[in-house]
Amino acid sequence: MLSNTTETIFIGKKPLMTYVTSAIIQLSTIPVVTIKARGQSIGPAVDVVQIVLQRTKPAYSVGDVKIGSESLVSSDGKNRNVSTIEIPIKRNAK
Amino acid sequence: MLSNTTETIFIGKKPLMTYVTSAIIQLSTIPVVTIKARGQSIGPAVDVVQIVLQRTKPAYSVGDVKIGSESLVSSDGKNRNVSTIEIPIKRNAK
Repeated sequence: MLSNTTETIFIGKKPLMTYVTSAIIQLSTIPVVTIKARGQSIGPAVDVVQIVLQRTKPAYSVGDVKIGSESLVSSDGKNRNVSTIEIPIKRNAK
Repeated sequence: MLSNTTETIFIGKKPLMTYVTSAIIQLSTIPVVTIKARGQSIGPAVDVVQIVLQRTKPAYSVGDVKIGSESLVSSDGKNRNVSTIEIPIKRNAK
């Protein structure tokens, strides 16, 4: 029986390894972990995924990467669009 | 007869709109333009794609996004891994 549980990790300003460790721990119990980020955290999100893959090689791979944008109201009251990314990391079939 | 021509735009330090304009111009003549970036340019690459889609709505959409990493030798002689992204923008079927 396959579990469809999926978990999301939002990338922010913490050190990269915080997210890497958290992703690897979650992947040990559930089949898919999705890394999400927006704006300036998009680069670091890709870094996190690459480090996870490298450290756990060849157990996991990247699923269908989605990019998009969200409309935010900034502190000066203007609407600003910010880009987003979602990167699923999934266990490889054995 | 479908043309398989594809063109690549590397995102660097220029103003975003330089890349946006260049992508829109290329998309007027060829069916797929791939936006590539690495390291700190990954975030801006996603921004470029989102702006292109927004301005040309609903003519184009995002294809299969690929992420990866490359090994570079930095100026101090050490090996460093840098993350990469490739985002194809393709014309929607009519």
